[in-house]
Amino acid sequence: MTDYKVVGKGLPRIDGPAKAMGKAIYTVDVNLPGMLYGKILRSPYPHARILNIDTTAAEQLPGVKFIMTGKDVGDVRYAFVDTPRYPADEHPLAIDKVCYIGDEVAAVAAVSETVAEKALSLIKVEYEILPGVFTVEEAMKPDAPLIHEELLEGTSAWEDWGVAQKKQQREAEINVNNMSGHSAISFGDVEQGFKDSDYVREDKFELKATAHCQMEPHAAVASYDPVEDKLHMWLSTQGIFLKRFLLSKTFKMPIGKIRIHHTFVGGAFGGKIDLFPYEFCAAYMSMKLGQPVKIELEREEVFMATRQRHPMVIKVKTGIKKDGTILAQDIKVIADNGGYRGSGPIVVFLCHGFSFPIYNVPNYRYEGFSIYTNSGIRGPQRGHGAPQIRFSIDSHLDLIARDLGMDSVDIMLKNIRHQGDLLPNGDRLNSCGLKECLEGAAKSIDWENKRMQFKAQPQEGRYKTGVGISLCAMFSGAMYYPFASAAIVKMHDDGTATLFTGAQDIGQGSYTTLSQVLAEELGIGLEDVHLVAGDTELCPIDIGSFLSGTALVTGSAVKLAAADAKRQLLECAVEVLGVDDIGELETQDKRIFVKDDPEKSISFTQAIQTSVFKKGGNPIIGTGSYKGYSETDRYPSLAKCKGLFTGAYGFAAHAAEVEVDILTGKVKLLKAVTYHDCGFSLNKTIVEGQVHGCVSMGAGQAISEEIVLEKGQLFNASFLNYQIPISLETPESVDQLVATYEPTGPFGAKEVGEGALAGILGAIGNAVHDAIGVRVYSLPITPEKVLRALKN
Amino acid sequence: MTDYKVVGKGLPRIDGPAKAMGKAIYTVDVNLPGMLYGKILRSPYPHARILNIDTTAAEQLPGVKFIMTGKDVGDVRYAFVDTPRYPADEHPLAIDKVCYIGDEVAAVAAVSETVAEKALSLIKVEYEILPGVFTVEEAMKPDAPLIHEELLEGTSAWEDWGVAQKKQQREAEINVNNMSGHSAISFGDVEQGFKDSDYVREDKFELKATAHCQMEPHAAVASYDPVEDKLHMWLSTQGIFLKRFLLSKTFKMPIGKIRIHHTFVGGAFGGKIDLFPYEFCAAYMSMKLGQPVKIELEREEVFMATRQRHPMVIKVKTGIKKDGTILAQDIKVIADNGGYRGSGPIVVFLCHGFSFPIYNVPNYRYEGFSIYTNSGIRGPQRGHGAPQIRFSIDSHLDLIARDLGMDSVDIMLKNIRHQGDLLPNGDRLNSCGLKECLEGAAKSIDWENKRMQFKAQPQEGRYKTGVGISLCAMFSGAMYYPFASAAIVKMHDDGTATLFTGAQDIGQGSYTTLSQVLAEELGIGLEDVHLVAGDTELCPIDIGSFLSGTALVTGSAVKLAAADAKRQLLECAVEVLGVDDIGELETQDKRIFVKDDPEKSISFTQAIQTSVFKKGGNPIIGTGSYKGYSETDRYPSLAKCKGLFTGAYGFAAHAAEVEVDILTGKVKLLKAVTYHDCGFSLNKTIVEGQVHGCVSMGAGQAISEEIVLEKGQLFNASFLNYQIPISLETPESVDQLVATYEPTGPFGAKEVGEGALAGILGAIGNAVHDAIGVRVYSLPITPEKVLRALKN
Repeated sequence: MTDYKVVGKGLPRIDGPAKAMGKAIYTVDVNLPGMLYGKILRSPYPHARILNIDTTAAEQLPGVKFIMTGKDVGDVRYAFVDTPRYPADEHPLAIDKVCYIGDEVAAVAAVSETVAEKALSLIKVEYEILPGVFTVEEAMKPDAPLIHEELLEGTSAWEDWGVAQKKQQREAEINVNNMSGHSAISFGDVEQGFKDSDYVREDKFELKATAHCQMEPHAAVASYDPVEDKLHMWLSTQGIFLKRFLLSKTFKMPIGKIRIHHTFVGGAFGGKIDLFPYEFCAAYMSMKLGQPVKIELEREEVFMATRQRHPMVIKVKTGIKKDGTILAQDIKVIADNGGYRGSGPIVVFLCHGFSFPIYNVPNYRYEGFSIYTNSGIRGPQRGHGAPQIRFSIDSHLDLIARDLGMDSVDIMLKNIRHQGDLLPNGDRLNSCGLKECLEGAAKSIDWENKRMQFKAQPQEGRYKTGVGISLCAMFSGAMYYPFASAAIVKMHDDGTATLFTGAQDIGQGSYTTLSQVLAEELGIGLEDVHLVAGDTELCPIDIGSFLSGTALVTGSAVKLAAADAKRQLLECAVEVLGVDDIGELETQDKRIFVKDDPEKSISFTQAIQTSVFKKGGNPIIGTGSYKGYSETDRYPSLAKCKGLFTGAYGFAAHAAEVEVDILTGKVKLLKAVTYHDCGFSLNKTIVEGQVHGCVSMGAGQAISEEIVLEKGQLFNASFLNYQIPISLETPESVDQLVATYEPTGPFGAKEVGEGALAGILGAIGNAVHDAIGVRVYSLPITPEKVLRALKN
Repeated sequence: MTDYKVVGKGLPRIDGPAKAMGKAIYTVDVNLPGMLYGKILRSPYPHARILNIDTTAAEQLPGVKFIMTGKDVGDVRYAFVDTPRYPADEHPLAIDKVCYIGDEVAAVAAVSETVAEKALSLIKVEYEILPGVFTVEEAMKPDAPLIHEELLEGTSAWEDWGVAQKKQQREAEINVNNMSGHSAISFGDVEQGFKDSDYVREDKFELKATAHCQMEPHAAVASYDPVEDKLHMWLSTQGIFLKRFLLSKTFKMPIGKIRIHHTFVGGAFGGKIDLFPYEFCAAYMSMKLGQPVKIELEREEVFMATRQRHPMVIKVKTGIKKDGTILAQDIKVIADNGGYRGSGPIVVFLCHGFSFPIYNVPNYRYEGFSIYTNSGIRGPQRGHGAPQIRFSIDSHLDLIARDLGMDSVDIMLKNIRHQGDLLPNGDRLNSCGLKECLEGAAKSIDWENKRMQFKAQPQEGRYKTGVGISLCAMFSGAMYYPFASAAIVKMHDDGTATLFTGAQDIGQGSYTTLSQVLAEELGIGLEDVHLVAGDTELCPIDIGSFLSGTALVTGSAVKLAAADAKRQLLECAVEVLGVDDIGELETQDKRIFVKDDPEKSISFTQAIQTSVFKKGGNPIIGTGSYKGYSETDRYPSLAKCKGLFTGAYGFAAHAAEVEVDILTGKVKLLKAVTYHDCGFSLNKTIVEGQVHGCVSMGAGQAISEEIVLEKGQLFNASFLNYQIPISLETPESVDQLVATYEPTGPFGAKEVGEGALAGILGAIGNAVHDAIGVRVYSLPITPEKVLRALKN
């Protein structure tokens, strides 16, 4: 490992100078000749029928070029989930009803944003206000108003699947109103497990919606070219190929008629995966007008009408032996997905996926529901279910430990999984540093000495401190369209190489790490890599920056492509260097040398020139591809339950030390410890940046962040009152990478961008309990909740 | 052949609509933020020493951002030919002397073209005028002034090669003043051949410089990005990789630090191959300023200071038997390359290459000189030597036929080469339709009945008609950097494909024909091809659009890349379609079917989806490469002389019918017949377009076109007085493609873009003799020359 020249170093980002100098082009920087500006009219009501839309006055405003409503578009549907069981439920613009405040009703294209805004104010919409539901409890009641009644009536797919299932499958529980998704997994005998246990406890936790808070607001530029009949788009997106696929499906246009061009992305965190109405409307209006249309969302719209993390109610029941061995666990998750399905059915499936890889529970039952309410739509957010489920399970285990007078770390250590374990779904853990993470985090936070739990004397004074620990597992990419990544490496005469990758750097640094992988494998410097990325026309397919798959999946594709180019280079050198086989050769610093006699060498340039007479010119072009899921490390025949997750899990342990002001109830994070097993760290600086970002975001969501809703009305859609941690609130931070070697990852690398978040919430929750002696069962742990808990 | 779905059809150009609608971006259309405008100061003297350049006043002009002179740049040299024997002799800006009127002396970058022009007028240059030489005869005289005396003194390379050679090798003839290049080839025993002949004749011909007359003037935009330390260029060029190579070499920058972006090119004809001072200066000033710089040449500058066709003096001496068998030939060529070497040494080598593939001459001697004069620089122009040498040889043969009372077509038929013939240099003619071309052209012009030669009665009246015939051979690409082409084919989910090619469509339609090759080979439609071309960063290497290589060389690379992609697609289908081997499968209309049971089929999309589970996603990416020269069809051991030309020769026979007005001397081309063997015609419309363009350009150069120079001063640098044929002068035209099958070409295709020009000059010359009974030995055949010939 120490022999590596490019990977494993904390090299600066290759896109850093361009970003620092303001030369990096983001979507909002794209300006095309004749470009118009679009704006969206949104519903002011959480649930209402649209009786009429009068656009007459708006149409007459000079400078208005196009006005579109749902009726113009017709019954076009799309969704994050679009399957026979869960058919698409979103329209680009509402047709006859609106389901949340912010729901899109009409769109305008005009010569300026000002004119477009004025036009919005001239559109008259007549609504019939309908009763709304605003919590999952309300929504699930048998007599609750139905938000998507059409899904129970017209849709044959629903009849085939959902309704039949409703009737036959576990009727009592699944027959709930406003259900948008359901997931049930079990193995072993849970009831028997509880019977065999020495102690059984059940807890209920609650988590609120949070916002992604990407620095760059969502934006799209669409430019339809009637000459070539092609739709060109510039988007702030996490996956250009997924977005192209969704546009193609929604517009019923062949994929080849759509090109997504590269722009830089200023943060995404899961909130830029879905197809959004503003993207559809920009494209639709550009296609109607033959002119480019730009739509950039206001910050308020980003909060209100893009995506949020799912609020959840989670029940965990665990049966445990006196020695700390977990015998059985029953988990119930109810996720509120808002006015449309969003990723509801996925998140309630994923909560299971982030539960069972941590502890070896022999008897296990999991059931999750996603439920419609008249709130903003919820979708993936860094961890996508992991923060909620990990907070709940590890808070619950901490409570059990306290009940039993045990050390929660001991219980964790007794039950955690290890390298080589076979998961119930048939996944094999090829690498797992969970034990090292847990032990390291406990030691680093001074668990033995600092925790209050076993101390005889309570703390004196206004400020109480405490420590807590929690764990997390995260996928390194998963099976999700487009399933795999490919890469092309094109050599230049001077020994430098162009990397073609469809990956999108959303700020996480993947352009740099992927370039490092190429440079290392090929034997060139990072400065020798030219990058062509993020363009559907120019780049090979890529899974996109979701589920932390870029390093492992795209990284593997890049490594294979580089190896392919390297092989071709070496083949050119065999004769010149007088060896029998390319196995006798190695590369470094753009030179090829004989391993046993390094003095004998030629430059890449010489090898490429030699190829003129071998191959026809110097077209040394390597290709590689890698699937999001490695079948070789799955044992489906041994699986005890369904679930197809990932080829490699990252693991983390978090420890937190907090200080609680019992006068004000304010929680302060003093120290955050993260021990993360990301396999091999391709770029230390970038990996640490991910960990820092995760800790800050997770701490914010544990302590202060919350989308405040009252009857569907969002009250804090700005950075003035949506409280993300600021730099002054950054705790003392200890980051330790636990080095394992993931055999399916490039140079042993796997996930880092999401798993480092999920554990900090439980660690903080447990630390607060440790500090004040009582539990706060819901996040964020606001001063009010602390004071209420202390009072009870 | 009739089974082809896409190739062989006269399909419209894929870039036609964009060009027709004004959407195609040419270099002059590239406008970048902060862009400056450059202008070049040129020498008003043909030969002078620069004593001083005073830029003080120009520098003080508001809006002037940069002024550069040769002294600033230093002794930077580059050239079309840059070898130890012929070292580079061009500077971006003259340092201490100027060698022709138009030679670059200084460059300015300013906020507008107007300011830049004003600045030029403020630069004061002090010259010492030197005696000039303006014809090759003058220049070769022992006491003539030396234009590049430094090449005889300082340059060690010249000392090593040239001077040594001068002394030792055939001293008497080679020791000439102002020689820039020399080529000598012989085989057999020429003197003995003449002795054995029944008749020997020698003639001398003369050809003037002509202009390319591209519709798009030369232009360059350079934008140096200091953040990435990269030079971005948009150029009107025929070969982006050659241009990048020349820029890299000249600036001593690694190739990877230079990116040439795609722009459309409005005609080139050989005149946009060289590196030009305006390109260097745009790049140099952009690198100094960190701002983009655009330089567009005025039409006058294009005439004066880009390139022209080489004026030549050619002597041909032939010994022939009574029965018409040629026994010996001795050819001498003297080319005037102007003030710098340009392609002088190349053109005098190529004249041989366009001579010996036509007639089987057993005893042969060829010698060519290129000579410096104080005129504009000469370089490649459509045919690059072929029009001059073919005109001379076939005029000469016609004169011999007249002397002997023979039919010149009979002499040609007796001596021409045939398929399978081995050329003296070891090239094998895999395809050769020369006989069919000649017979077809003779029949089409009604040779038997129309020619005056054997008619007893002279024509009456003022207008005399006559017919003539001439032949041509042309390369299909040759060994010239970058030697080979490669292509990448990237499949999309919808079965469409992106073609990455470094080829540059210079107006000849290669984007369309290359896309056709891909579509045919892969089994998709032309509309299913997405094209990414002409960008050094995005595209694989390409030989460039010189020497008519695109169809054969790049076409072969594209065909191989498509076949590679197709193989991968078929492999995905083997299991699904239940066959044992991909050999049992075929593709058509984006479907794969079983050959023996075409009902069994799957779509490309299905096959790509299947690949998810075979290969990792759908990265079906095919690559292919092809060398400019096929070694398999060369027999160097059998070669009788040196010369490495091409893998495949195109052939043509031209017949012309002219009308000469003996009162005014004006020659009118009544009918032009072209029988062209381009192997297989990939696109009939495009091939015919090439033939029409060739005939028009060749006829212009035969009858009216001439760069008029007087002591180095160009007198007709505009379309007002440089007379290219206009549409009203278009003759009745018969184009017949003689179908052969070139085994090294894609679908059997080979050259068409240049060979269809060279023969028309000789055909017209012979027709004029046939009409008026006397010979005009020099081109163009102006009224003055006709009247003078009639008078003598």
